[in-house]
Amino acid sequence: MANSRSGDSVTERLVRVLETFTATRTVQTAAEIGRRSGLPISTAHRVVNDLVVAGLLERDDDRRVRIGMRLWELSTRSSHALRLRQAALPYMERVQLRVREHTQLAVLEKDEALFIERLSGAESGSNITRVAGRLPLHASSSGLVLLAYGTPELQERILQAPLVPLSRETITDAGVLRRKLAEVRTLGHAIAPGYIEAVSTGVAVPIRDETGAVAAALSVVLPRDAAPDAALRELRRAAADTAAALGYRR
Amino acid sequence: MANSRSGDSVTERLVRVLETFTATRTVQTAAEIGRRSGLPISTAHRVVNDLVVAGLLERDDDRRVRIGMRLWELSTRSSHALRLRQAALPYMERVQLRVREHTQLAVLEKDEALFIERLSGAESGSNITRVAGRLPLHASSSGLVLLAYGTPELQERILQAPLVPLSRETITDAGVLRRKLAEVRTLGHAIAPGYIEAVSTGVAVPIRDETGAVAAALSVVLPRDAAPDAALRELRRAAADTAAALGYRR
Repeated sequence: MANSRSGDSVTERLVRVLETFTATRTVQTAAEIGRRSGLPISTAHRVVNDLVVAGLLERDDDRRVRIGMRLWELSTRSSHALRLRQAALPYMERVQLRVREHTQLAVLEKDEALFIERLSGAESGSNITRVAGRLPLHASSSGLVLLAYGTPELQERILQAPLVPLSRETITDAGVLRRKLAEVRTLGHAIAPGYIEAVSTGVAVPIRDETGAVAAALSVVLPRDAAPDAALRELRRAAADTAAALGYRR
Repeated sequence: MANSRSGDSVTERLVRVLETFTATRTVQTAAEIGRRSGLPISTAHRVVNDLVVAGLLERDDDRRVRIGMRLWELSTRSSHALRLRQAALPYMERVQLRVREHTQLAVLEKDEALFIERLSGAESGSNITRVAGRLPLHASSSGLVLLAYGTPELQERILQAPLVPLSRETITDAGVLRRKLAEVRTLGHAIAPGYIEAVSTGVAVPIRDETGAVAAALSVVLPRDAAPDAALRELRRAAADTAAALGYRR
C-alpha cells in the first residue's frame, strides 16, 4: 500500500502491524502480529519492539502487546475526528435522550462510513456499528448521506463496484442506488429500512462544516416499525446546532 | 527517545513528527513540522510524505497536513481508552445531567493524568482539561486519585520531583502531598480546592477494572464554593456501575 520513497518501508510495516489490532483483538503476541501482518517474524519482532520503546504499543507481563495510550493521545488530540465529535456531542446527547435509540456520527473515509461516535441507552435496540468501526456507503443510512453529498467521482466509483448486500434488503442494483441518492439530496435525509438488519431502520441527516460542505452524517437506528418523523426532527435540529458550533453560517 | 534496534530510527522520527501536532496546532506544512520536530528538513519532508502515502496523515489543497482519520481509526478501534470510555460513558452522562458540571475520565500515562473523555453542559464553569489532554498528578483531583492508588515507585518518583504549582493553592510540599494521598486512600476520593484554578474545585473517585485495580479516575469540576457531597454520591455510583460494566465483582 505505502509506496515509501525512503526505501525502507518502515511506515508501511508500521501500518501493517497496527492493522492487525481490531475491536475484538486488542492484545497479541509479536508472533501473532507477525503471522497476521504477513511480515517475516524477525521483522515483526523488531517493529513491535521499536513501537514499544517509543510508547506507541504497550507490553504486559506476559509479553503480549496492545495499542498504547500514547498512540491514542497523539492521534486524537489534534484530530479532525475529535473536533467534529466535540462539536456534535452535546446535540447527540439531546437526540439520544429524546429518541432513546443509538445515535451515531460518521465521516467519509476511503469509500466507507467511519463511525467516530456512538451513544447508546440501556434500552436501545440492535445495532452493528462501533466507535472507529466502518460500514459500506450503499448499505447504511449514514453512508447514503455521505455518498449522496460526495463527489461525482466517489459516486461513480461506488456505483460501478459490486454492491455487496448486508441483508436481503440492501440495495444491490446501481440504478436503484442512483435514484436513492437523488432522493436523499431532494429530501435532505436518508432512510435505510432493513438495509443492514431486518429488525432496524437507519435514519441519517448531513452535518455541514464552516465551509458549507457536508462533513459528517448524524444518524439514529430505530426499530423497523417505528415512524421516523420525530427522530428526523431531532436529527435535523442537532445537525443545524452542530454546524453552527463548527462555524457554519447559512 | 526510541532506542530503535532497526538502525534507522524511523519509529522515533514518526513520533517526533506526530508530537508536533497539538490541540491548537492541527494543520502544518512539512517545513513547519521539520522546524518543530528538530528533524532535518529533507527528513521531515520524506517522513511526512511516507505518512501521507500510508494514510496516517492527510494533505489538503495547500499541501498542509493534518492527522489522518486512518491513524485515529487504527489507534482507537482496539484501544484500552475506548473500552474504558465506552464502559463509563452512560454513567458519565448521568453524572453530567445531575451535577451539570464538567465530567471527566482520566487514566495514568507516563506520570501524568491523561483525560480520555470529557462531557460538558452549556452552563458548566471554568475547566482547563481537554480530551487527550494531560494534567500533573499532584495538582488535579483525578491525578491525586491515580497517584494515591498508584505503585510506591510512582509515588516516590512524584514526591521526589519538583511539585510545580499551577495556582497559588497547588500542593508543592512533599510532606503535605504525602498526607493528602493517605487521606485520599482513607476517604476513597480526592478533593482539590483551587489547586488548578482559584475559581474551581476538582472532585474525583477511583474506577476499578475487572481485576480490582484502579484503572481510571472519574471527576467533576465544581464552582469553588459548591458543597461536594451530592457530586460525590453521583461519582461513587457512576464509578461502581462502570466497574461492574468492566466485569468487576467486589
